[in-house]
Amino acid sequence: MNKLTHFDESGQAHMVNVGNKANTHRIAIAFGQISMQAQTLEMILAGSHKKGDVLGIARIAAIQASKKTSDLIPLCHPLALTHVSLEFDTDLNANSICCTVRTETTGPTGVEMEALTAVQVALLTIYDMCKAVDRGMVMGDIKLLEKSGGKSGEWKAGESKLI
Amino acid sequence: MNKLTHFDESGQAHMVNVGNKANTHRIAIAFGQISMQAQTLEMILAGSHKKGDVLGIARIAAIQASKKTSDLIPLCHPLALTHVSLEFDTDLNANSICCTVRTETTGPTGVEMEALTAVQVALLTIYDMCKAVDRGMVMGDIKLLEKSGGKSGEWKAGESKLI
Amino acid sequence: MNKLTHFDESGQAHMVNVGNKANTHRIAIAFGQISMQAQTLEMILAGSHKKGDVLGIARIAAIQASKKTSDLIPLCHPLALTHVSLEFDTDLNANSICCTVRTETTGPTGVEMEALTAVQVALLTIYDMCKAVDRGMVMGDIKLLEKSGGKSGEWKAGESKLI
Amino acid sequence: MNKLTHFDESGQAHMVNVGNKANTHRIAIAFGQISMQAQTLEMILAGSHKKGDVLGIARIAAIQASKKTSDLIPLCHPLALTHVSLEFDTDLNANSICCTVRTETTGPTGVEMEALTAVQVALLTIYDMCKAVDRGMVMGDIKLLEKSGGKSGEWKAGESKLI
Amino acid sequence: MNKLTHFDESGQAHMVNVGNKANTHRIAIAFGQISMQAQTLEMILAGSHKKGDVLGIARIAAIQASKKTSDLIPLCHPLALTHVSLEFDTDLNANSICCTVRTETTGPTGVEMEALTAVQVALLTIYDMCKAVDRGMVMGDIKLLEKSGGKSGEWKAGESKLI
Amino acid sequence: MNKLTHFDESGQAHMVNVGNKANTHRIAIAFGQISMQAQTLEMILAGSHKKGDVLGIARIAAIQASKKTSDLIPLCHPLALTHVSLEFDTDLNANSICCTVRTETTGPTGVEMEALTAVQVALLTIYDMCKAVDRGMVMGDIKLLEKSGGKSGEWKAGESKLI
Repeated sequence: MNKLTHFDESGQAHMVNVGNKANTHRIAIAFGQISMQAQTLEMILAGSHKKGDVLGIARIAAIQASKKTSDLIPLCHPLALTHVSLEFDTDLNANSICCTVRTETTGPTGVEMEALTAVQVALLTIYDMCKAVDRGMVMGDIKLLEKSGGKSGEWKAGESKLI
Repeated sequence: MNKLTHFDESGQAHMVNVGNKANTHRIAIAFGQISMQAQTLEMILAGSHKKGDVLGIARIAAIQASKKTSDLIPLCHPLALTHVSLEFDTDLNANSICCTVRTETTGPTGVEMEALTAVQVALLTIYDMCKAVDRGMVMGDIKLLEKSGGKSGEWKAGESKLI
Repeated sequence: MNKLTHFDESGQAHMVNVGNKANTHRIAIAFGQISMQAQTLEMILAGSHKKGDVLGIARIAAIQASKKTSDLIPLCHPLALTHVSLEFDTDLNANSICCTVRTETTGPTGVEMEALTAVQVALLTIYDMCKAVDRGMVMGDIKLLEKSGGKSGEWKAGESKLI
Repeated sequence: MNKLTHFDESGQAHMVNVGNKANTHRIAIAFGQISMQAQTLEMILAGSHKKGDVLGIARIAAIQASKKTSDLIPLCHPLALTHVSLEFDTDLNANSICCTVRTETTGPTGVEMEALTAVQVALLTIYDMCKAVDRGMVMGDIKLLEKSGGKSGEWKAGESKLI
Repeated sequence: MNKLTHFDESGQAHMVNVGNKANTHRIAIAFGQISMQAQTLEMILAGSHKKGDVLGIARIAAIQASKKTSDLIPLCHPLALTHVSLEFDTDLNANSICCTVRTETTGPTGVEMEALTAVQVALLTIYDMCKAVDRGMVMGDIKLLEKSGGKSGEWKAGESKLI
Repeated sequence: MNKLTHFDESGQAHMVNVGNKANTHRIAIAFGQISMQAQTLEMILAGSHKKGDVLGIARIAAIQASKKTSDLIPLCHPLALTHVSLEFDTDLNANSICCTVRTETTGPTGVEMEALTAVQVALLTIYDMCKAVDRGMVMGDIKLLEKSGGKSGEWKAGESKLI
């Protein structure tokens, strides 16, 4: 059975040695959403077209946060992202905004945490900008959708099982 | 009807003027959870008692992240937190770990974003440390539970309505 | 004659002691501009209305940078900004974009450096986003317009003289 | 005609994909100046030789700021600088200090923003250290002088035209 | 007997609640030294007078580091320093440079960690700048000399005993 | 005789040009210790097994600090660490805790400063968590133990001489 690689044999945390891993092209795609009152969603959508651009600001916050991932997550390796992009979609039935982030690099470690961190900060920024009108917003379904590159190769959510 | 206070009359983003707000004692409590495979949860719980202390590391990451909130969320005011604490609980039926964060300050702005940021980074850190065995973990139900202090006074989730 | 207060009597740099200064309401207003090719300016102005919102992104970068001032400028005191706002204007004759930043706090030190730092990063962000089409853009006329609060009271540019 | 590469086809900001760009040796040289009262300049020049070393401190601040460029400018890629140096010159006729910064790396993206950021923070630091005696200082003529490396090759200011 | 205050009753780390503590004037003085080859010390002392100002750069690094203390030390509270100064002395018999840092604030928590962090980074910066000629330098005797303010009042090293 | 490489011929600080250096596998091992009252040491050792895990938190703080080295030490190059690990030992005779850090990368510059910075922040974090019971703790014997890689090759403490 596998074990938690962030700990050595004696159970102490370390930054895993990736010095012998090959530099491969890595991609990760992560997802998350925030649900809210119908009126809040209307305000956001109105703003994106004209003024009060909540999603434009959340997008910038997310890209900047992806670059801070190794500063936020203790055992993450620092790495040089080569690409970050976000897509926002609206689910009008669920009164929610969905966020999908794609991150890429070429290096010895994956970019899953960078994609997930960007999603979280995008959602937090939306919450921050709308909390004056709707404090009860809920963030959820935050997960990795897929990743490729590295020794473990391709992975897609839904095919998930204990590795 | 209310409006999004992070934009001025012309729809441009600004850091809201809080210069005239009173310094009051502010408390916020936020919540979130991460669900996983039963075996992953077992590994985490085993580690917390003996070695490979995932939750201890997530706790530290969360406290440090709460101090970076105004660096992550573009229109947040910088503030001096006077208290941060986390509690982790296990929901064995749902195979999930629940995280509750309490933040406090005395000042002109609330600490809701600090509590939510700490929750998000706690969950992300758990994800990071366990992703080698379980990439399909899902983070959700991330929300403000309650807050007090400031002009708007007390608020509790469940009593939520469009403000 | 006055002297440079960031050095002690022996000429060594220090963070000036402000422990005995009163907490007053401080305001600073700073200005700067970036001149460019006429076509570049057209692209920026087109984007602000529709898509490719250069100025919206520069605004967010500037607000975030104002919060990093004491991290960038070695002898600046850390302080809690209570307000930051930016205004962009266009000088069509000079093919330039003008940026005015207002910062505020209540405390023992002024916020001039926060306003100037925000201006500089706004201009740098515009440069970055347009450099693929116009590398010859020039930033200039960056200065403090006015400040108030503190022992030295009000000051306006143009009335400038050696203090 | 060219377009602003920091936006995708739908006008949304992203961190441009540089995954397919070759790693080449990149150099950028940027320039800027700050003009002041004659007496302020004298104080600075006196200090550089003996005590109260304004320019020495500005130099350190600038080198440190160059390393923070991707944290300050939202869509900048993180990169590993291999060289940063500054030169200060005095223009006694204009009562100004001129700053020239050279940055280098080997990688898929240029170092123009790192050089310009270093110039801006050098000038801001000079302003900060002298503002107690001269608040009317003005920063200007901040621009890229030349760059080399990458697909677009060499570029020098003065040969500038819309690309 | 006392206990470690950074843990709650169940042994979990938290950021201690200082919301009820009074804002008092706090001072801390910390000390440390770095010993080296006689020739290395000569090079440093030569540089401080003329060029290659190792101690001037270490001073700036230390002041900047003091502002990052709460980012480096997980359970430290963020606070607004009102004063930081450093003094370097030379012990020619021991071939060492001694560094004394004084930090001050007015607030609910002490500034001991800020003073100690500044000492450590001053010594590390000296090491960094001289390691090309002397890798065997040793840093030591790093300690708090005295502190005042707060409920526990005055404390001086040498009077130390288990509290 | 050698000279301080962080200064150019005119004595001005710069970030040394490493653009022509080969990418080699670099390892550094650094050491340091903190001495304390016997009772303080007992409290720490008790906590590591059960609750109040001082060393676990110091370990995380140290790993995170190693990633901030180039932000703390002005002339350090940014680099991508591929491995960081810490070992804590107890010297019961001296009532001290010893910390050994190993850092690795593949690149053009060494990782000595990253290892030393991690040691310093590990010791500072232990001090912070125990200062409520023992303010007189002293940190010392902080030094590089060995390094390998790069043009200068292997080096071990004890074989130290002026290079």
